[in-house]
Amino acid sequence: MAGPLVFALPGNDLAAGRLARALGGEVGALTVHEFPDGETYVRVDTSPTARDVVIVATLRHPNAVLPSLVFLADALRDLGAARVGLVAPYLAYMRQDTRFRPGEAITSRSFAALVARSVQWLVTVDPHLHRFASLSELYAIPTQGVHAAADLGAWIAANVTSPFVIGPDAESRQWVDGIAAAAHAPSTVLVKTRRGDTDVVESIPNIDDRRSCTPVLVDDIISTGRTMIAAIGHLREQGAAAPVCVAVHAVFAGESYSDLARSGASQIVTTNSIVHASNLIDVIPSIAAAVRRQLATFTESTAPGAVRPPPPT
Amino acid sequence: MAGPLVFALPGNDLAAGRLARALGGEVGALTVHEFPDGETYVRVDTSPTARDVVIVATLRHPNAVLPSLVFLADALRDLGAARVGLVAPYLAYMRQDTRFRPGEAITSRSFAALVARSVQWLVTVDPHLHRFASLSELYAIPTQGVHAAADLGAWIAANVTSPFVIGPDAESRQWVDGIAAAAHAPSTVLVKTRRGDTDVVESIPNIDDRRSCTPVLVDDIISTGRTMIAAIGHLREQGAAAPVCVAVHAVFAGESYSDLARSGASQIVTTNSIVHASNLIDVIPSIAAAVRRQLATFTESTAPGAVRPPPPT
Repeated sequence: MAGPLVFALPGNDLAAGRLARALGGEVGALTVHEFPDGETYVRVDTSPTARDVVIVATLRHPNAVLPSLVFLADALRDLGAARVGLVAPYLAYMRQDTRFRPGEAITSRSFAALVARSVQWLVTVDPHLHRFASLSELYAIPTQGVHAAADLGAWIAANVTSPFVIGPDAESRQWVDGIAAAAHAPSTVLVKTRRGDTDVVESIPNIDDRRSCTPVLVDDIISTGRTMIAAIGHLREQGAAAPVCVAVHAVFAGESYSDLARSGASQIVTTNSIVHASNLIDVIPSIAAAVRRQLATFTESTAPGAVRPPPPT
Repeated sequence: MAGPLVFALPGNDLAAGRLARALGGEVGALTVHEFPDGETYVRVDTSPTARDVVIVATLRHPNAVLPSLVFLADALRDLGAARVGLVAPYLAYMRQDTRFRPGEAITSRSFAALVARSVQWLVTVDPHLHRFASLSELYAIPTQGVHAAADLGAWIAANVTSPFVIGPDAESRQWVDGIAAAAHAPSTVLVKTRRGDTDVVESIPNIDDRRSCTPVLVDDIISTGRTMIAAIGHLREQGAAAPVCVAVHAVFAGESYSDLARSGASQIVTTNSIVHASNLIDVIPSIAAAVRRQLATFTESTAPGAVRPPPPT
């Protein structure tokens, strides 16, 4: 099987190039620009006809990316691509997954519907699932959420002396356990209550019996950084060592990265799901494995007489 | 029949309020804000259940508006609105209506598909139709393009002494004739060739026999303003009076408004399809008439035994 044709939306060139190499495919040439009136122009400069196509577009700025993503996917199908999939290392609009107050738009559902009408499969890294147990409840296309826990744990094991892994909330227990197992380290979780967009109230576990360890605060996303900043404050009050902050997705809204750096973290480390100065953990190999699985599913399911397997979740 | 419930996306409050009054309806309360991470939050604060709903959202910044438009429309349907229509006084993505170069995304089609999946009818003002003869070739929902020619002509008749109406290109001939008829004025058109995004080459008709008139340059959209700036230069070379510039849609990309003002226009006048300092022509009454027709179509077509009329175009 020839490898796929990989297109990078602006800002995703590095990930697309490495993904294409890992898959034995090639990067397609693409032109995206904005007209003076603010409309977006998209041109596919490598023919996708009869090719298996992968779009790489991390969704750190989902509103800005959405038009070019939809236009590109529509054009690729129109130009005869065999199938178009999306690798969104960071997947957006996972928080508003229900109506917390009457009348709210459930943007998780709306956004998923927009993506699912445009592409035929989706691979992402550690989606922020909350009320939905799996991506398949939101997305009407085959999806795969790559688990970054092993990559995070391996980095911690290799780089932190005597780590003590601390997760953000009770819900993250299983995910934190996975990281701790890969890091060969003990772990615990914070108790957190979110109020509005930015206010977070939490309590830190007593670390008396872990005073000789290096605290490692882990989370799937660092957005405002408030959770980690508050946790760092509590840890320092208890006389703990300056913690290492490790997260999958380097969202870093506003000034949150410098705020977090100033708050007493000894180091801030993220994966390259969103390009950022803090990227030290590489998730491209894990993404490539997941994409390979999607492509193989397609090949099998379209072979004569093949039984289509259930979509991976 | 009770009037419709009208929701204004941010920046459209004035138009929505006047439209609601003209239709005997009311403006619904709506909350739209952006989270620190850039995602959009939408909440409908007036129940749309079983109501005929109108969203007012001009598409001057289509990429920025698209997510909130889709989220709002999805939420309204989800909350039980009888029907959801869109008033977009300025409709975006009308230029790329074909593949000028191989591999180009036909954004007119993609954008129309996004809108048509979200709302059930569309009313706009003078859409920039080029290769498509009517909106119905692009939009799979009932649409109506309000003609602003009479409103422009009436303003010219009331405000310009001895006007001579000059249209932007041969294609605009019929539209310019409509304006000139309403203004009781003679008219002509420029010959224009567009090169790339901003370069325009044109020739101006000889105005010797109209030297006593006030030139009135008209166009559907002023975006970069290059067409009008070049025309003003040619007119001044011929010793014509400083022209009045009249357009439907005040797009005004970048510094184009001040560029045009400095280039020798005696006045720049637009309709309120896009809120701008140059708005002097009111198209809300014309829009209200078109919306009333859409709402009536719905009522008739859903009455028992009614024959559904073909969608207006």
